[in-house]
Order: sequence, then structure tokens, then C-alpha cells
Amino acid sequence: MVQIRRYLHQHPELSFEEVETPKYIATYHKELGHEVRENVGGRGVVAKLHGAKPGPTVALRADFDALPIQDEKDVPYKSLVPGVMHACGHDGHTSLLLVLAKVLNEIKEELSGTVVFIHQFAEEHAPGGAKPMIEDGCLDGVDVIYGTHLWATIPLGQIEYTEGPIMAAADHFTVTVQGKGGHGAQPHHTKDSILIGSQIVQSLQHIVSRRVDPMDSAVISIGAFDAVNAYNVIADTARLEGTVRTFSQDIQQQIQKDMNEVIQGVVASYGATVKFDYSYGYPAVINHKEQAQIVQQVASQTPEITEVVHSRPQMGGEDFSYYLQNVKGAFFFTGAENPSWETTYPHHHPHFDIDERSMLHGANLLGNLVLKTFENA
Amino acid sequence: MVQIRRYLHQHPELSFEEVETPKYIATYHKELGHEVRENVGGRGVVAKLHGAKPGPTVALRADFDALPIQDEKDVPYKSLVPGVMHACGHDGHTSLLLVLAKVLNEIKEELSGTVVFIHQFAEEHAPGGAKPMIEDGCLDGVDVIYGTHLWATIPLGQIEYTEGPIMAAADHFTVTVQGKGGHGAQPHHTKDSILIGSQIVQSLQHIVSRRVDPMDSAVISIGAFDAVNAYNVIADTARLEGTVRTFSQDIQQQIQKDMNEVIQGVVASYGATVKFDYSYGYPAVINHKEQAQIVQQVASQTPEITEVVHSRPQMGGEDFSYYLQNVKGAFFFTGAENPSWETTYPHHHPHFDIDERSMLHGANLLGNLVLKTFENA
Amino acid sequence: MVQIRRYLHQHPELSFEEVETPKYIATYHKELGHEVRENVGGRGVVAKLHGAKPGPTVALRADFDALPIQDEKDVPYKSLVPGVMHACGHDGHTSLLLVLAKVLNEIKEELSGTVVFIHQFAEEHAPGGAKPMIEDGCLDGVDVIYGTHLWATIPLGQIEYTEGPIMAAADHFTVTVQGKGGHGAQPHHTKDSILIGSQIVQSLQHIVSRRVDPMDSAVISIGAFDAVNAYNVIADTARLEGTVRTFSQDIQQQIQKDMNEVIQGVVASYGATVKFDYSYGYPAVINHKEQAQIVQQVASQTPEITEVVHSRPQMGGEDFSYYLQNVKGAFFFTGAENPSWETTYPHHHPHFDIDERSMLHGANLLGNLVLKTFENA
Amino acid sequence: MVQIRRYLHQHPELSFEEVETPKYIATYHKELGHEVRENVGGRGVVAKLHGAKPGPTVALRADFDALPIQDEKDVPYKSLVPGVMHACGHDGHTSLLLVLAKVLNEIKEELSGTVVFIHQFAEEHAPGGAKPMIEDGCLDGVDVIYGTHLWATIPLGQIEYTEGPIMAAADHFTVTVQGKGGHGAQPHHTKDSILIGSQIVQSLQHIVSRRVDPMDSAVISIGAFDAVNAYNVIADTARLEGTVRTFSQDIQQQIQKDMNEVIQGVVASYGATVKFDYSYGYPAVINHKEQAQIVQQVASQTPEITEVVHSRPQMGGEDFSYYLQNVKGAFFFTGAENPSWETTYPHHHPHFDIDERSMLHGANLLGNLVLKTFENA
Repeated sequence: MVQIRRYLHQHPELSFEEVETPKYIATYHKELGHEVRENVGGRGVVAKLHGAKPGPTVALRADFDALPIQDEKDVPYKSLVPGVMHACGHDGHTSLLLVLAKVLNEIKEELSGTVVFIHQFAEEHAPGGAKPMIEDGCLDGVDVIYGTHLWATIPLGQIEYTEGPIMAAADHFTVTVQGKGGHGAQPHHTKDSILIGSQIVQSLQHIVSRRVDPMDSAVISIGAFDAVNAYNVIADTARLEGTVRTFSQDIQQQIQKDMNEVIQGVVASYGATVKFDYSYGYPAVINHKEQAQIVQQVASQTPEITEVVHSRPQMGGEDFSYYLQNVKGAFFFTGAENPSWETTYPHHHPHFDIDERSMLHGANLLGNLVLKTFENA
Repeated sequence: MVQIRRYLHQHPELSFEEVETPKYIATYHKELGHEVRENVGGRGVVAKLHGAKPGPTVALRADFDALPIQDEKDVPYKSLVPGVMHACGHDGHTSLLLVLAKVLNEIKEELSGTVVFIHQFAEEHAPGGAKPMIEDGCLDGVDVIYGTHLWATIPLGQIEYTEGPIMAAADHFTVTVQGKGGHGAQPHHTKDSILIGSQIVQSLQHIVSRRVDPMDSAVISIGAFDAVNAYNVIADTARLEGTVRTFSQDIQQQIQKDMNEVIQGVVASYGATVKFDYSYGYPAVINHKEQAQIVQQVASQTPEITEVVHSRPQMGGEDFSYYLQNVKGAFFFTGAENPSWETTYPHHHPHFDIDERSMLHGANLLGNLVLKTFENA
Repeated sequence: MVQIRRYLHQHPELSFEEVETPKYIATYHKELGHEVRENVGGRGVVAKLHGAKPGPTVALRADFDALPIQDEKDVPYKSLVPGVMHACGHDGHTSLLLVLAKVLNEIKEELSGTVVFIHQFAEEHAPGGAKPMIEDGCLDGVDVIYGTHLWATIPLGQIEYTEGPIMAAADHFTVTVQGKGGHGAQPHHTKDSILIGSQIVQSLQHIVSRRVDPMDSAVISIGAFDAVNAYNVIADTARLEGTVRTFSQDIQQQIQKDMNEVIQGVVASYGATVKFDYSYGYPAVINHKEQAQIVQQVASQTPEITEVVHSRPQMGGEDFSYYLQNVKGAFFFTGAENPSWETTYPHHHPHFDIDERSMLHGANLLGNLVLKTFENA
Repeated sequence: MVQIRRYLHQHPELSFEEVETPKYIATYHKELGHEVRENVGGRGVVAKLHGAKPGPTVALRADFDALPIQDEKDVPYKSLVPGVMHACGHDGHTSLLLVLAKVLNEIKEELSGTVVFIHQFAEEHAPGGAKPMIEDGCLDGVDVIYGTHLWATIPLGQIEYTEGPIMAAADHFTVTVQGKGGHGAQPHHTKDSILIGSQIVQSLQHIVSRRVDPMDSAVISIGAFDAVNAYNVIADTARLEGTVRTFSQDIQQQIQKDMNEVIQGVVASYGATVKFDYSYGYPAVINHKEQAQIVQQVASQTPEITEVVHSRPQMGGEDFSYYLQNVKGAFFFTGAENPSWETTYPHHHPHFDIDERSMLHGANLLGNLVLKTFENA
């Protein structure tokens, strides 16, 4: 499992540009003799393992795309692709699901049902791979779905679940300030897009702290400020790009409206103009209560798992939401924080890593959820 | 003259990367039979025209580098090089000096002295081409030097000069904010470099408006805000780059000190760190009084020139300052604003252009200054 | 009940300055023949009604102080005291408790227990009146306590309760910026305290939006910016005063630490100094589970009450927390929003008002809670 | 002279509220036997000394109002009026003019002309006292006027003058932000006027640094931020009050327009409203060239004066401008900085003081200007 994960870690591929990873996955399943469908919804791979006996169909999902981040870790399995990195643990998801598939395959004579392995592309980049894969039939005949995310800031051995919302809606926006460029020594003939953009960055934060009910949760983050000119040229334009996270449609729409008000006002105060694009991303991931309780129950009985916590929702977005809009199921977090680390780097950080033992925990719990489902049927 | 200018306009070359432009210039002078020295101080070209009679040596200087700006004009002579543009009129300086050279060459039998044509590379980018060209001897034997800048926001037909400071000291700085990157949905685990950088942009402007004596002149401009990440990743670092313009060493040093105080304070308020590099650029351009008066006098007698104005200094930097630290001389502005333009774009703007008739005015005045110098000797 | 409320509304008294109000309350109870203790813990009034039969002791609490706000309502019962106003409904609390006392007095022969009427001074201003009143014995012998707040943004007829936290911890802080004053036309000889204070106001908001876990709730509000000078004098000092609301001690202490970092950093960036005082206010109000459920149950059976809602906690602070640290009990909100209002003004607003029918609802529910307690015993 | 000054220093009176000071002045002149007119233009005093011989009429002007600043100096002659202080030296102006009057009176037999002593009220507060005093005839028959300002940051013994502008136009503005008040714990139901006002303070500074030609001089200072509420009440309104200083009507009008744009934009970004009042104050003080040269010449021959400097204009406003719009004359600065002070406090500072020997210098120079005028006639 570690070997596969490290191979994938060295060969990351960006969302919607995955070529070798799905090929690798498909080959693995084919060698196990599974029924494999490639290019599902674009670049997804769906493999099926039929147990010897009839029973329900359980889907397990792992995503396999990477991020446009430069790997700055000093480890032998560091990314070989400049500027691309598995900084969210999807390599771990994929390798744990592959090895679990192998293990389940070995006991297929005893299985009373079907397992569908959904290997999803492009989780990191809306509109994501889940939606087209569902449209392309990956959930056909599926009765229940489970999935997990290895999580570097949760201690190894711990499982976190919720009944209800577990991850936020994740939207994307772009603000393009149109000032008036010119010579750096003649500001009075220009409208300084960098100054205007900076003001927008400052003021947007006031929406969360002043306009959202303190009892509600919301995040506005600007990930990119792009105004790269010659140092002595006042910027004609500046581009800001970011994300909004919410758990309710009301707050989501209020924030979009408030952002527009803030942006238009700031830009007007400098006599400039602006283009504001806001696009809805993944909806919130809402666990089904029954399956969330099954996760809690099965996790409590899985030996390596030392703690099962009813957690608070995460602000991160996930397109696992679409699966749960179509079939019953649950999503949970598998602790991946090495207890001996001095510093734990968050997801999407250039030094991000996981404790690889977490993959075993995730695989065991998912496997036990399959067996439990077959038993219960 | 227009033909040469348009050819150069279509083939701009960045500072310190000029290859074809100096070759073109050298060829032109060689064909006129001038004594030509190439690669002067790096990429400069120095040509000499010896009049038939003895007399003083007058240098005329034109710069020939371009800027990293995308040409967005819709004209047949638009730049053919993506992202590079003659957005400051140096193409015009070069072509007017070449044609003037040709004209003077035609009357060389009547000339009592020597003309040195200094074609300078890399004016736009400190440390500039002037200094190495001087060190490589371009001013050897020169008695006096003149130079002009075509200026798009001065009406066609007008000459602007000063006795004393005509252009500012131009410094360069870089601010690199080191926050802590992370997932866009988990701001509380990060230190948001874009937010910190934005605050620095806002606060640096308060130095000019609150800490500099209102009777003094100063500019701080940030030309680049570089924090280009995935939209849902909070930026680990942000880089700001900009320029400071001043006319006195006291103000220059006070601003450098104040900038450090502002930057360190803002960064401390977010618990982050920063690297602040400040490098001195070109000194102020200080015209010699006698030569400035000669410019005024000769300009008033040059027919096409309709107005001669004692102007205020410009905040823009120029490495012509180095020539005037070594020999006597003066620098002046030649109006290049087409009277029928609806909008005049400032220098360094993607739509910048000049009224090409201004080249004739600049050439005539420089030519007359040469003749005047020879006469007076 | 309306008459008493309107009388009190016209004669509001500030926290710790109450003189006539407690006198009025004491007289009322004395006329009913209740056992009355005045000046309890300072300015509080405690009255006791002994039922004819033995039984438990139930305390009911109402606060009676007003706020330093100018009443801007256009009603006949508008405040007669300039700059002082019952802008939080404490007049209603008091009058509903008085009238309830009268009603219970009328049926005292049937009552199996004792009712303690706690009329508390100074709820609006920490350290508040609850603590000294408890220290002065107001809870002696009390078995259980109930209290309510009329709430203008909850519809008339609705009761809101929670099991657990219902109101936040409410802290107080003062930031005194020491710049350097001087002539408004010579900013370079000064350190502008208003500019520095403004920057602090802006930056403190970033703590809530960037440094607090989005899943946690927190508020930082600055209620006063005091830098009132001659318009042409640059301010020597500026004083900011505000409040912080939290539900956990961890977040509370993190915010205090972060505020200090922000404030010191901003002030350092201007080369000024600052004094930052942070004082802990009321702890969070935590309802006891059993009593909260009794509120829910009794409210559901009280005729005029049309809806009973398990609400989210409020960010407002209340010193009712101290009573609940000493005896069992619960606090709830009584809807006071008139259904025909076009605009509902929030608490502490110059146009704040209540639908006076809410007083009847509050009185009925508190009365039924007393009867229920006596029955259950 | 020192005695008079110290008496006045202890008994300061605010602009437009002067009662005892003009009475004191009138009495002084009456005792000298001068022709005295009181209540000129309101609260001004004009005294005339007729020389024995005919000649021109020279006016000398001293202002006598004080500022709403608390005197924080630790000296025996500290202000006895709480919150009011001679923090600009007008007490010095008055006492030097009174003693000069006495001295000139002693030699009146030798004087060939008339001296008009204009004691002006309300210089600190536009519309000022100069205008109504002129309208009330204080310049009738006057041929030339001189005035001085003692200046604490100019070394003792030094005189500063200019030909042309010596002091700026000084305007006054008020910005009243109308947000929506409410409870400090419920920001989402409010529009926080203090946050909005703070943003306006920050952004207005960008006008001077980004929108005014760096070669021009301008100041925008906000002297008052008035939003003094209970600390836990979000401010319904915030009032900013400040001043703008310029030397040209173009810049003045551009700034007024830009301020409006900035303020409206910021307020719109928060969905609030605002009232912006801008009123023109004193015009720039423009010295007449001939009289400025006379000041330079006479000062150079006055023994105690050690240095005469052609200074840069000051940004401070003065209604001496109105006198110079009506008659010829000049205004100059008299150095009042004690050479042994460790810290020199600027004008309008709570610790402001003057070196009292400066009064002698001012009196001597004004006296010599009178004599010179009489001689030249």
C-alpha cells in the first residue's frame, strides 16, 4: 500500500489532466480480474467485484487528482513533477482502495454482494469529476456508498464522523479590477489597481466578521492576487481569485450579494471598474443519519481504530456531496497525523504529508463497512 | 524617420537583452561612414562624426530599450513581440538620432567639431546602461552632452526644460511576506500572506501623505503584487515590488526607514515575517544652469517649436543623471501629444503612443544645439 | 402592567445609578405585604412571598437598569431623561414581575412554597448586580431560579430556550493610542492617533474572520471611537472601547492574545505607543438541562404561547450566568416583536421598543413555572 | 511684555467667545491715549496712533484668540481655563503689539504718519475675524499692512519670509456616517458606523499620495473622530471632522471632488449613507513682492535678528490673506524656538510654548517696518 502511494506521490497529475493515474488504476483492477470501465464521465475508472453470493451493491470512492503546488518536502518519494503535488492525500485514498480491492478479491467466494470501486478524477477543481461520473452511470445499481478522507490534523487512529453536514459548500470567485495603468512616478494620471485590489482584500474579510450571524459559519479566502508588472509600472488591472465556504444556501447567497456590494463600492471609491464572477461549487456534504451511525458502530469495533469522534463539520468542500444526493451513504475522516511530528502541515501546504499507517485504518474501516452491509442485508 | 521608428516599434527588445537593435544602429552608422564602437559597456553603440574643421566635442544620447508590457494598440506598427513594447518612446529617440546623424553627416564639411552619438541600452532597468558605458569611455573627450525625452503628455511643439533638477531619484524595493500557507477553508491554521501584503500596500501610502513634509515631493508606487496560487490555497508568501521617487537624499533615507517601520509593524501584527530589500536607483537628473539656458535660447529660435516652458521637475527616473555628473549638459522634454487625440495614454501604458512629428522637433533642437556649440567655441 | 412599564420607561436610570426605580419596586412589594429587603448587594431589591403551605423556594429574577442611549422614539411614553433609555426591555421585565407578584399574592393561600422576587440592578454594566446580590444572600434558601428576557426580534407568542449555553461570555476592552498631536497642516511632525486607531478598527475584524475557527462563534465590536479634537488639530490620543463575545474560554483567551498582537503591531508600524486593557465580563449563561426541559414543557401548555423553539445561543452577555452557577434553573427568551411593525429595531437601538403584550406571556410562563415547581415537589 | 503675555496665557478665550481679552487690549490703548474702536467686526479692537507729522498709514495686526486644547505644561503661567489654551502663540502676538504701541507712542513726536493697531479676534476658527473687521472698516485709509507669527519650530533669532504664497488655503469638512446602530453582539443586524468611518480615514489619505501630482502640495487631516457610545452598542453614526490645505484652486477643487468619490464609495460598500459637508476656509496668504523684499531688507538690519531665510510656504491657514487681498503688505515668521529645549512641541500641542525673547524680535522688526515706511514716504 505504501509502495503504491509513494509511486503515485512521485507522479501527481492535475485535475482534468489525469492520464497515467487512471491507466495505472485500471491496470491494477484488470490484473485482479475485475470488471473495469475506463473514461467514466471523462477520466474516471469504475471497477466491480462480484461476490460469489447475491446481495446488495456497495460503492467505495477514492479520488486521485493532485494540486498545482510545488512539493517542498525533503523525502525520497517527493513529487517528480515541478509545481504539482499530492498535497491533499488523494494518493493515499487511491492506494488504500486498490489494496482493499485486492484483499476483498481474495475473499470473494465468501462475499454476499457486489463492491463498486469508484476511482474519481478531479475532486480538487469544480465542477469536479463526481457529477459527470454519476451522469455516466457510476452509481447505477448502487445501494449505498462510503468514502473517507485521510486527514493530517486528526491524530492517527481516530475516526471523525457526523450525522448531517460534514463538509461545506465551496464556491469560486474572481474579481478583476480595471484601473488605469501608467508610470510608477505619476500616480495622479493612473488608477492604481493594486491599491484598489488590496482594499478589496481587506474589506471582504469584514463580511464574515460583521455581516454573517456569529452563530453561522462562513469563510471567504482569497488565494491569488495576480498583478505582476514591471516594478515601476502602475498596474492597469489586478486579478483576485478565491473561495467561499458555507453550510446554508441563505448565507451563501447573502455573502455573494454582500461581496458584490463591497467590491462595487470600493472600486467606485477609486473611480475604477471591476468584473466580479461568482460560481457555485460543490454543495455541502450531508451524511445520511443511518449510514453515519453505521460508520460510528463499525469504527468502534475496528481494532486499530482507537477513537471515534462525533466531529464538527469541516469548511472544506468535497464533491462527495453529489453521491449522497443520489444514494444513501456517509463520508468520514481518517486520522493521519503522525504522533511524533513536531509540526503538522495543513492540507494544501507545500510540506503536507500523511502518516501512511492511516491508509490501513481507512481500508479496514471501509472493508468492514462492506462486510457489515452484506451481513445486514 | 517614421519608417525607422515603426520598424523599431515592431521589434522591441527588453533592457539588457538588446541584440538586434544595437546591430541595426551600428549598421546604420557604418553605412554613413561613421567611426563606430559596439558593445560599449555591454550593449551600447557609440558612433563619431568628425566635422571637417576642428572644434569642441558634443555628445547626443538616445536610449533604445523597451518594456515588459503587452502592446494593446490597434495600429499597423504594433509590437510583434508578445509582452514587450516600446511604451516609453525610446524607439523615437533612436530614430530621431539616427536621422539627425545622417543630416549632420551630409553637412560634415561645414562642421567645426565632433559629434558623438551615444546609443544607450537598458535605461528602463537599474543599474542601467549609462554607467557602464561611461566607464567604458563613451564620454572620453566629450565637452558637453544633450539629450531629450519625447513626452506624450506635453503638447506637440512644446519644449520643457529646467535649471537644476529635472528628474527624480528612482529607487527599487521588494517586500517578501512570509506567512503560513494552507487550505482556503481553514484560515485559522494559516497566516494569510495576501491579507498581510494588502495591508502593507495600504499603509505604505500613508508615509507619503502623513510622514513627508507636504512641501516636499515623494512617490511610493507598488507595481507588482505577486501571490499567484490555486484559488483555494491560502498564500504562503506574497511578493510586492515597487519604486520610490525623491529629490533629496534626506527624504529618500527617511522614506526607506519609515517603510521598514511600517512593513515590520504590519507583519508583526499578523505574527508573520518579512524580507525587505531596498536598492538605490538612478540619482536625480540635475541640469547644468548654463546648458539649460542654451536649450531655452536655441529652442526659442527653432521654427517648429511653438512654446518653451520652464517646467517643474518630473518624478520619473533617468540614468542621464550619470552623464551630467561627468560632463556639462542638459536634458529636456519634447512634446509628443497629438492635438487631436481624445485620450492621451501615459508612458508605460499598454496603449501608449507618440505623435511622430515630435521626433522632427527633437532632432531639430538637438541639431541646432550642436551647431550652436560649434559656433560658440 | 402597561402602566407600570410606561412609567419606568419614562424614568430610566443608568446601571449603578438606580435610585428611584428600586424605591418604586420596594414600595410596590411592601404594599402587597411582602417581606422586602432593599439595597441588596448595593441597589437590588429582594421580596419574598410565602405561600400558605410549605414547599420549595423558587426565585424569579428581573433586572431594572437602563442604557446611556438617547430615546429617539416618537411615543407618549418616551424617556424623559436626556441620553438615558430603557433600550433593552428591562422596564418590561420589572413590570411583568411586579404584576405577577400581585397575582401570586392573591392566590397565596393555595401556594405550597415560597417565591423570591429578585429585582436586580446594573445588568448592563459589568461587573453587574447579580454577583454582589448573590454575595449578599439573595439566593439563600432558593431551590431553583427562572428568568426571561423580552426579545424584540423574536415574534410575539414565541418562546426560545436551549439546553446548555444560551448567552455568550461578554468581555470589555479599551485601547488607548498615544500618538503625537500637533497642527493639522503639519502631519510630518505628528503621529496621527486617529489614523492609527482607524487601522486598529480595521485589523481587529480580521481576527474573527481569519484567526478563529470558522466553526466557532466570536464577535469583536468597537462601540466607541473617542478622538474629539478641534478639526484642525491632529489627535494626540484616541480611545477605542468595545466588547468581545465567546462561548469557550479557549477562544476567549486566544482572541485576547491575538488582539494584543494586532494592536501592538499596528501601533509599532506608526512608531506610536498604546495601552490595551482587557477585562473579563459575564461568563456564558448555561441552562440546566432539566429546568430547560421544564421550560419547554410548561411553555407548550401555556395558552397564549403559540410556539416554543429550541434556539441557538445568543451572542449577548447576561449576568444571569452567576445565578445558574449557584442554583439550578433556566433562562429563556420571550418574543416581543409586534407582527405589524414595518421595521424592527434591535436591542440597544435609539428606536427600540417592545410589543407590550409580550409582558403577559413572560409573566404567565414564569407564574406557571412557579406553580409547576410547587406541584412537582 | 513677558508679564502681559503670561497674564493672557493664563486667561485664554476661545474664538468668537473673546470678552476679557479685547477689553484688556482696549484699556491698554486707551491708557496710552490712542484713538480706540471696540467691537470692530464683532470682537476686534482697532487703535490708532497719529504721529506728529503727516505721512502714510501703516497697519500692524495681532490676533488674540486661543484653542480648545487642555494645557498640559507644568509652568507657573499655565492656563487657568480648563480645556482652553494659547497653543498657537497669539498671546505673544498681542503682548508684543501692545508694548510696541507703547514704545511708538513714546516717540510719536518724531513719527511721520499713522499707525493702526489691528487686534483681531477669532483667527483660529473660520470664517475668522479678519473679514468682518475689514468689512467694518479696519483697513480704511491704510496704505500697507504687516503681521508676524511667532513660530516655535523656527530657531530664535531667525526670520522667515517669502515672495508670494507663504501660507495655504485652509478648508474645513465634516463627514457624518449614518449606519445602523444596534447591539454589539449582533453585528449582522447593524451597519457599523465606526468601521465605515475608519475605512474613510484610511482611504482619504490615498488622495494625497495617489491623486495629487507629487509636485503639488496638499494635506488632508482628520482632527476629530466622534463616535462615543456605550462600549457594547454598535454606533449608529460617526462624525469625522477635518481640514484640507492647498496652494491652488485647481488642487483644492480636485480634492473636494475626490473626497466625495472616496466617501460615497466606501459608504456604499457597506450599504450605509453619509452626509459630506465641505466649506472653504481662508485663502492662501500671498505676500506682495515689494513688501516681502522690504521685510527681508529691514530684518537684515535689525540687530537681534541673526538670520533671514527665504522659506518655503507653510501648510497652515491664516486669515491674514484677506488683508493682503485689500492692501499691500507682507506676513512673516519670527523664530521662537528656545535653543536649549530638548523637545520642541509643535503649534496646537498640549505642551506648546514659545521662547518669550521672540516677542522682542517680532516687535523690533514690526517697529522698524513702520519707521522704514515713514522714511520712504
